[in-house]
Amino acid sequence: MNKKIYILDSTLRDGSQGYGISFSLEDKIKICCCLDKLGVDYIEAGNPGSNPKDMEFFKLVKGIELKNSQIVAFGSTRRAGIKAEDDKSLKNLLEAETKMVVIFGKSWDFQVMHVLKTTLEENLNMISDSIRFLKGKGKEVIFDSEHFYDGYKSNKQYAVETLRVAKEAGASVLVLCDTNGGTLPNEILSITKDVHETLGDNIGIHCHNDAGMAVANSIQGVVAGVNHIQGTFIGIGERCGNANLSTIIPTLKFKLNYDVCIEEELSSLTTTARYISEVSNIPLNDDAPYVGSSAFAHKGGMHINAVEKVSNSYEHISPEQVGNKRRFLVSEVSGKTMILKEIQKVFPSMSKESEEVKIITEHLKKLEYEGYQFEGAEGTVELIMRKIIGKYEPFFKLNHFKIIGEQPSSNGNFSSTALINITVDGKTEMTAAEGDGPVNALDKALRKALDVFYPQLKNVRLVDYKVRVLDSESATNAKVRVLIESTDGIEKWTNVGVSRDIIEASWIALVDSIEYKLIKDIQRKVKTYF
Amino acid sequence: MNKKIYILDSTLRDGSQGYGISFSLEDKIKICCCLDKLGVDYIEAGNPGSNPKDMEFFKLVKGIELKNSQIVAFGSTRRAGIKAEDDKSLKNLLEAETKMVVIFGKSWDFQVMHVLKTTLEENLNMISDSIRFLKGKGKEVIFDSEHFYDGYKSNKQYAVETLRVAKEAGASVLVLCDTNGGTLPNEILSITKDVHETLGDNIGIHCHNDAGMAVANSIQGVVAGVNHIQGTFIGIGERCGNANLSTIIPTLKFKLNYDVCIEEELSSLTTTARYISEVSNIPLNDDAPYVGSSAFAHKGGMHINAVEKVSNSYEHISPEQVGNKRRFLVSEVSGKTMILKEIQKVFPSMSKESEEVKIITEHLKKLEYEGYQFEGAEGTVELIMRKIIGKYEPFFKLNHFKIIGEQPSSNGNFSSTALINITVDGKTEMTAAEGDGPVNALDKALRKALDVFYPQLKNVRLVDYKVRVLDSESATNAKVRVLIESTDGIEKWTNVGVSRDIIEASWIALVDSIEYKLIKDIQRKVKTYF
Repeated sequence: MNKKIYILDSTLRDGSQGYGISFSLEDKIKICCCLDKLGVDYIEAGNPGSNPKDMEFFKLVKGIELKNSQIVAFGSTRRAGIKAEDDKSLKNLLEAETKMVVIFGKSWDFQVMHVLKTTLEENLNMISDSIRFLKGKGKEVIFDSEHFYDGYKSNKQYAVETLRVAKEAGASVLVLCDTNGGTLPNEILSITKDVHETLGDNIGIHCHNDAGMAVANSIQGVVAGVNHIQGTFIGIGERCGNANLSTIIPTLKFKLNYDVCIEEELSSLTTTARYISEVSNIPLNDDAPYVGSSAFAHKGGMHINAVEKVSNSYEHISPEQVGNKRRFLVSEVSGKTMILKEIQKVFPSMSKESEEVKIITEHLKKLEYEGYQFEGAEGTVELIMRKIIGKYEPFFKLNHFKIIGEQPSSNGNFSSTALINITVDGKTEMTAAEGDGPVNALDKALRKALDVFYPQLKNVRLVDYKVRVLDSESATNAKVRVLIESTDGIEKWTNVGVSRDIIEASWIALVDSIEYKLIKDIQRKVKTYF
Repeated sequence: MNKKIYILDSTLRDGSQGYGISFSLEDKIKICCCLDKLGVDYIEAGNPGSNPKDMEFFKLVKGIELKNSQIVAFGSTRRAGIKAEDDKSLKNLLEAETKMVVIFGKSWDFQVMHVLKTTLEENLNMISDSIRFLKGKGKEVIFDSEHFYDGYKSNKQYAVETLRVAKEAGASVLVLCDTNGGTLPNEILSITKDVHETLGDNIGIHCHNDAGMAVANSIQGVVAGVNHIQGTFIGIGERCGNANLSTIIPTLKFKLNYDVCIEEELSSLTTTARYISEVSNIPLNDDAPYVGSSAFAHKGGMHINAVEKVSNSYEHISPEQVGNKRRFLVSEVSGKTMILKEIQKVFPSMSKESEEVKIITEHLKKLEYEGYQFEGAEGTVELIMRKIIGKYEPFFKLNHFKIIGEQPSSNGNFSSTALINITVDGKTEMTAAEGDGPVNALDKALRKALDVFYPQLKNVRLVDYKVRVLDSESATNAKVRVLIESTDGIEKWTNVGVSRDIIEASWIALVDSIEYKLIKDIQRKVKTYF
């Protein structure tokens, strides 16, 4: 058996300190579920003591069954001069009702004296008391030693003493934090080694990226003997972000051969990173290691030739290992096998040689080039396949729609109205609807018109609507990608539309979502009757 | 004197291999001039043997006087089986007429045999002959040892032999390349140390970022004894990019105290990175170490308090050292002190007790509750303060606007049109414009109308447009937050609007962005005249 490295993902806690990050409860649940699937050991999901929204989440998450991950609440040691049982934030931590908690305490003498403004001794008591209190309540405790590396450089003896006290009080993991993110890899190695030799196993590391070294420093930690790494999945976090787990996990597995996450799930690493980026509404960098869309993209002709001869010419691992794809930027040639797999999900008899497979591949590639993204938009992908392979006939014909936005409108405020005219089986239907915004108005008007012909659409409702501005530098005339998630109460599906115009992009996704439902219903009937 | 580390910037050569990068001749000249000002030692500006555009550049650049940097041309060793003097690409290299050239050759036995498809011995001759040939023509030669680290791990003796041969032939610097970007920091350290001990000084390092460690690996190289680092200024390059010099340079200077670039110019590091990003048309990540706009941004209330007490609480260096700025993000978690600070930037005489401070705080909190987010939207925050404190009078009165979206329109496709009617100083102006989407149309129409009264708005353009759907579960009638970033060529500012209607949210942010500019202009005039 290879040595196990435990992963703690703090996307929902430290990650939420990042610029522009604000998770809804639903976002948080979605992220928990996908980290659980990958086999991340601990999900640090919030700070119930500092934030009422986080407390609400901990109540909600108790109803969710996770297979692999433990939800962990985060808090701090008690305040100076009071008893642990009187500390409000420790009480809040207990109310989160997680089996395991992380608490942070200070290890840098300078910070204790000048920020906490207390004595070095009282700080040791704060650490010890808080951990004993939590242990007494039956919790398992991880101790985050804030500013550990800076503290060690300032007063080695005291910094190590804070850890020793935490260990004696019952902390099961001692996590060395490079809180300011400025420590260099060789310093990390020698300091961590010293701690590991002094205090034994179950040391963790928590790095920030202020000098661009959070990933390398975490790996140096492992070289020095740590078996617990904290970070955020796509590296989001305050200032320059936290250690990026989507880089660290494959490095541990494929380069150092550690036991990390669930081995069979690592081929979904790219999808996971893209999904979390989508939910966080933080674009994933094209050049993100392992999971970025350019991570295995080759441009130079010479490089392309060499990679075709021997893939390790310009690839440090094989892209399939992390579920990514090789791309040749000059002549796109990859992906057919992957698309075939998708097609066979719906039409199992299709083979690689089928003409339809070629047509679908080319069509999807063209759409991707235009800004479509099919990860998570399985509704649209299936519809495209069905349209090309099946005998598809449109369910309605759009004759015309018109959207009017007016400020001030007759009621004095801004209002949006949509008019729509469609034909089904030779019968024409015209409707109008007002809505909160042009897309909502259009959605309402379209449904009103279609309900006449397809009463089963009454059960369909939109559950999510996301807008992503592509190439945002060209400002208000940038391309827009709209993702719409719908449900009929039985199934959920997602459709995507891209256009320079947000209304048109939304229209494409809206129509797609309705057609998907209607096609699915026919398929179900066919299955029932024959 | 501290030890000198030489910097070679390859933005124009290896950087141009990055996804989406394409430099014009003018772009290249601009980048050379700003790297020269900073004191970068070598600018690797192109591959004249592989690219006629690059050759053109080398002719042009001879007319430009650089103070600190040397322009360097890049090429490869001669092909197998021919004489160096007959090699076309070496001839092209000479035609670039630079004093110094970089040539790369292979150091990985496997690559020599399976990609070059020649013998190990002939490869040594190719390296030796090419360098001797170039030296004979009076050039100084830097030797880039491609795949050095992978080569060393595969066949240590041969890899080192390629370097020895290059040194004997007269190469002045031997550069160890981690071409595939997959080597780990501890491997880099031990291998580079070995080479340095075996071959002496003037060793360089060239790292790629495929495992997210290019910066750390370059620094490990320095720890092992190298005195020459290659990278690209903002990290652009093939796949996951090259070692990021805007991170490496301040690390060498401020953490390791090396002599690097021109010390007095390091406070323009942030401006340089942003300028190169602008010229390359590659957005600089907000969280880029040292130079990103969030690199010194603090969000958590506790962190803000601590940084105010002691700045090194959450800052590894002082932002002024690299010409960046500290920012406190106004958010749910920030308090009154923070808002007071923002107010005092504009109205220094305001105190905590002022009635206006209370009103502003309450107003901002109310807006935040409604879904506004002020992180990064300093434009809107300043405007709100000015409106509440100053004697604000609106610059125009909106009488009416109307937006029409139609499918199909007269041209058969979807089209968006905006009509607008405004009054300024009793004069009414009505305009109309078509656009890519309703917001773009509205933006155009509003500017057309206002240009008549405020010609200074001609210089203002939108540079970024972001849409975030809030509480997205309520789907198409969810709230929408729009962020708009504008510039007048001198300054950049961001404004925010929130509404259930994307058009209204965009309208709010648009009007804000224009009012901000007009108020700023008045303020500048006031400053000039009194």
